[in-house]
Formats: sequence, structure tokens, C-alpha cells
Amino acid sequence: MNNHDEALTFELKHICRQSGARYGVVTTPHGSFETPVFMPVGTRATVKTMSNEELISIGTKIILGNTYHLYMRPGTEIMDLAGGLHAFMNWDRPILTDSGGFQVFSLAKLNDIKEEGVAFQSHIDGSRHFLTPEKSIAIQESLGSDIMMQLDECTPWPAEESYVKQSLERTTRWLERCIDVWKDRKKQALFGIVQGGTFEHLRIQSVKEITSFELPGYAIGGLSVGEPADLMYAMIESIMPFMPADKPRYLMGVGSPDYLVECSVRGVDMFDCVFPTRMGRNGTALTSQGRVVIRNAIHARSFLPLDPQCDCYVCTHYTRAYLHHLIRCGEILGLRLMSWHNLYFLIDLMRKIRDAICRDRLLSFREEFFNAYKIVNDK
Amino acid sequence: MNNHDEALTFELKHICRQSGARYGVVTTPHGSFETPVFMPVGTRATVKTMSNEELISIGTKIILGNTYHLYMRPGTEIMDLAGGLHAFMNWDRPILTDSGGFQVFSLAKLNDIKEEGVAFQSHIDGSRHFLTPEKSIAIQESLGSDIMMQLDECTPWPAEESYVKQSLERTTRWLERCIDVWKDRKKQALFGIVQGGTFEHLRIQSVKEITSFELPGYAIGGLSVGEPADLMYAMIESIMPFMPADKPRYLMGVGSPDYLVECSVRGVDMFDCVFPTRMGRNGTALTSQGRVVIRNAIHARSFLPLDPQCDCYVCTHYTRAYLHHLIRCGEILGLRLMSWHNLYFLIDLMRKIRDAICRDRLLSFREEFFNAYKIVNDK
Repeated sequence: MNNHDEALTFELKHICRQSGARYGVVTTPHGSFETPVFMPVGTRATVKTMSNEELISIGTKIILGNTYHLYMRPGTEIMDLAGGLHAFMNWDRPILTDSGGFQVFSLAKLNDIKEEGVAFQSHIDGSRHFLTPEKSIAIQESLGSDIMMQLDECTPWPAEESYVKQSLERTTRWLERCIDVWKDRKKQALFGIVQGGTFEHLRIQSVKEITSFELPGYAIGGLSVGEPADLMYAMIESIMPFMPADKPRYLMGVGSPDYLVECSVRGVDMFDCVFPTRMGRNGTALTSQGRVVIRNAIHARSFLPLDPQCDCYVCTHYTRAYLHHLIRCGEILGLRLMSWHNLYFLIDLMRKIRDAICRDRLLSFREEFFNAYKIVNDK
Repeated sequence: MNNHDEALTFELKHICRQSGARYGVVTTPHGSFETPVFMPVGTRATVKTMSNEELISIGTKIILGNTYHLYMRPGTEIMDLAGGLHAFMNWDRPILTDSGGFQVFSLAKLNDIKEEGVAFQSHIDGSRHFLTPEKSIAIQESLGSDIMMQLDECTPWPAEESYVKQSLERTTRWLERCIDVWKDRKKQALFGIVQGGTFEHLRIQSVKEITSFELPGYAIGGLSVGEPADLMYAMIESIMPFMPADKPRYLMGVGSPDYLVECSVRGVDMFDCVFPTRMGRNGTALTSQGRVVIRNAIHARSFLPLDPQCDCYVCTHYTRAYLHHLIRCGEILGLRLMSWHNLYFLIDLMRKIRDAICRDRLLSFREEFFNAYKIVNDK
């Protein structure tokens, strides 16, 4: 499994006897991380509000960069001059980059999808661009990420079966084209992406197609896009038997505490989401009891920490009354402290999940977690 | 000079033989700081974008809090429950609070000044308030600052002589009322404020009136409000012979690098200003060569630090190209890093000024400084 000719190796260290969940270690050219892992999102070469030192202090081992945003600004010319995203943002740990496709479909003013690729207009200045599988890989090579993602189409929910089928088959063809132009396999890994919407047979078709290519890892895309949680869990369960056991499995765009627990139980190894930082900036904290909306007037006179169970910097240094004041005033320190706590909460949750896996008690942990944690439309 | 019955003591340690500038040490219930000192402004219980740890790491020894803002939000009830501003914001070093008057005159929707005090409407919710000298002290007692300022009227520039005279005389009467209600002199110091606009004889009248009260320190208000720099320097020079040598002298609201150097030369000991953080958030860096407008396109491809002469965290970790990108994107990390550098630059400048005073070479330092530093309407 430790193939030193490859950018990425995955060591499956333990399978939880209670749940079947996996504990592993992924090694990249910029260091290792344990799985299951949560990857904070650094959309525009910064995890919003946070410094690198703060990310490291809370145990962040890998971050995600957004290819679409970085392609728009600062662009590949400056990324090349800087020597890649690691150097540009002075982050020396692993980076995963998405393909840019998701943002082209969700952010661009107009987009026109063809077999060749996607024509789109920048959401910033309306400039016209054409993203192809080859171009996505070229941009990600300029970024120099440790893990690149193939260009895929994330189909919306709900969607017509015929469209989802057509789209997943194109995603497979696009993977083939990404692999064809993928150059330095010692420096950058490439993950394929399973699509198929919420149609079990299409998911199975996709996972078979995608995993027919020997790749360093495989992702599950097109979930957590509005479908009921049970449907998401069912889709994951349906494809898991076909996902190679010796490769990391990355569920894209998922990051609420309940999803992290449930999907770890189902054998997922990697997660990312803007959820914790976005929630934080909106004045909501994730805690062991569920969400705390710090904006609410009830917290103005509360001199408790956000989460009495939490030992993060924020909870050990500041009160709810102070955070309420900062958020009400729109002070940047408030946005920072809320983001900091929420990221810590998720990274600490993943530590607890890994610990429970290694101790063969992830189902017991899940029960304990949900006994305390109230779900309030937590997505 | 070390009167342990008083909240504040000032030890004048050295007078620069070249310039007459002063090096001293101020001791308060929350610790000591060397003078001349620059005090970062923490308007709403936070120095904008910065954490306490970052402030401490760059050598911040005292910060300023704004009474008006803290009175509006969170208000004295919560400040009392929190146990004061130090506890509320978890800052255990000295804090100076202004009287609230400046903001009432500049921010409130309407204000009506009378001998008794100022009636005003909150800039946030339009609620009606009445600020008197006694009320200002009561609020500052609730905040628990180490140094309180008297309520004064900062007259605008230009202003009629008769009005300035009337106003400074009222400021003197207000000082008397502040002193009358000033309770715990072991816990909180009180500074009087010299006004008088840009009329030399009125400045001298004011400094004589204000210093006729035995107080722990004296401030110079009503300068840097739009008048030419030379006029400000002339006003400071005219009153300096009347300022007690054994008390700290605080020039309010001044913080551009050129002013800090020139006013230290003229015997000022304490400064504060929102200038460095506001400039930083607007994308402008203070450097040894003058201002660097990092927003400008020329920096997009510059992999130099903001200031090659600077050894701050920002200059040793990040390039202009990265800061340009963050500021152009409106990323909070950009606002943080620019504020951080600018605060460091001023605090480091004060270190150099103190060093030059102690080595009897502040005029030589001034010449070296201005040989490199370009002034571009630096206010």
C-alpha cells in the first residue's frame, strides 16, 4: 500500500468491529493525515477569518482550495509565479483542490454544458471561459495541490433519471480525459467522482465505472444537495460495497456534525464543507448540545462559554456575552472566534470518531453523541 | 513620584539631551508601560480584527476603549455584570477610556450642548441620552479603566475664538465636576484635557486652568482635527512649558508616523489613533518608506514583503501578491494581516523613539526617519 512512486498512499489501520467504520492514514508530498478527516475549506487561498497558525493549533491537517475561485482570482499566471498555492498562502500541509466544476454550475452567471466541457461567464466580471477536464487538471497543476479532483457534473436534486444517467456517463468520460493529461503522479494524486443522483442503480453504475480506473482515491459527489438525509445515507450504503477498501473515500461538501458521525459509520474517510465557517460568521455555534445562536438576546447576559464541554481557545477565554456583543456589532474578532470554535468542534469531533473506531465502539459513540446533540435542520 | 495611594504613577527616567523628549514609565493597577507609547484603539471592546494574543505579541502594553460605544452597546448593566471591560474582553493590561464626549459630538444624530451636559440621540437606534461629566465618570467606573478622561468639548477646526474660549472654560468647569465624583483614586486615574483650538493664548489659558488641578496626568485635546500640521506643532510647543514635568502628557487622537515622531520630539508621552487599523482595513500599509497601497495592481505580481525593513509576522510570512489578493477579495485574513502590520509598525516606531531618547539622539533619529519616509497626506 505504501507505493512510493505515487503522490498519495492510504494505509487502512483499523476497521471498527462495532460499525465497520475505518481508521486510516493518508500520506501526501506535504505530510500525512489520519482519517476520517474533516477538511476546512480555503476557497480563495484562505480559510475564512483564520490564520494558518490557528488552523494548525486546532489540529487541521489538510485544507481544501477552490479551483474556480483561484482560477478567477488571482489566476494561474500569478499562481505559477508564486510557485503554487502552498507557497502563495504559506501553507505547507496537504491541500486538496476541487475541479472547479461545482462552482461553474452554481456560481457562474451563465453556463452551457457540452461533451467537450462547460462554457461559462465569471461571476466577478462576466468574462467568458471554457472549462474542460484537461483545463481543470492544468489549473490544478498550476495550484500544485496534493489531491486533484476530476471535472464532473454535480447533478441537482431532484433531477430526471435520464438526465442523471447521461450526466454520470459524461462524468466517467471526463475522468478518462483527466487521467490522460494527469502528468506528475508522484507529485499530485487524482480522485474520480461517483455521481448518479438519488437513483440507486445509477449510483451503482457510476461507482463501477469510476472504480474501473485505478486511482489513488474515489469521491462521492452529488449528495447533500437538498435531498433528505435518509436518501443520502441510502445512496452511500448502496455504493460502499463497490468502493475499493484500500483507497480513501471522500464525501464531497458534507460537514454538519450529524452527517459526519453518520457517514463515518458508513465508511467515509474524508469530508469538507464551508458549513462551520459560514455558520460561525452568521453567529451560530456548533456545540455538544446542538446549535447555539449567539445573536439571540438570551446570550447578552450569559457569562458561560459557548460550549461548557469544549476546551478550545474560544471556550476557555471568552463568554457568550462577549461573543454576542461582537457579533451584534459586526466585529471581525467575533467572526474569527465563532469560526475558530466551529472548526475546532468539527476537527475535535473527527478525533473522537477516530478514537471510537480504534476502540471498536463507533455505534456507542454515535448514541452518546445524539443523546446530547439536538438536530435543528442542521445543514 | 511613586505614590502607592494613587492608581497611576509616572517615573520620568530620561530626558533626551538632543531633543528634550522624555522617556518614562507609567504604572497602573494592570501593569506598566514605557513612554512615549502608542495605544491601539479598541472601540467596541476589541481592537478591530486583532486578538489579545496578537496585540501582546507585537508589544501592545495599553489599549484604549471608547466610552460612547460601550455605553451604547453592551451598556453599563452588562459591563457591571461582567465585572468591567478588562474581564469582559479578557484583556488584563492597562486600559484608558475616553469620556464619550468626542463621539457624542461627532457620531450622535443630534446633540444639544448645555452647561449641564450634552443631550444626544444614539447613532444606532436614535434613543435619547444625556451625558454629563458625572455620568461620563460613572460609565467609566463601570468600565473599570485604569485611566479615565474628563468630559470635554473637542472644538472643531476652524472655530470662532469666542466659541473656543467659552468651550474651554466649560471644559474646565466640567473637569471640576468630574473630580468631585471621582471615587476610587487607588483604582482609576483621571486625566484633565487642555483645549483652546488653534489660539495660542486660549491654549495657554486652558493649560493653566487644567493643570491648576492636581491630577495623575494631562491630555491635549482638540488637535489633529483638520488644522495644518505646523499649527498643531505650534500649539503643542506653546503649552509644553506649562505642562507639569512629572506627569504623563497624552495627545489625543494622533497616530500617523510623522506626527508620532514630531510630537515625541516636542515632549508628548502618550498617543492613540484608529489610523493604523483603519488604514489597514482600507488596504494601505505603513512602511519605513511611506505608504504602500496594497490594493494597487502593481502589487499583484510582487513577491516582496510589505516592508523589507520590517520583522513583523506579516512581513516575515506573506508577500504583497498574497495580501493584494486577499484585500481585493475582501477576505478577513487580509484585513487582519494589514491591521497587524500597521499596528506593529507604530509600536515598533515608538520602541525606536524611546531608544533614541535614551541614547540622546532623537533629532538624529527624526532625520534618518524622514530621509526614508515619504509623507503622502498622512492623516
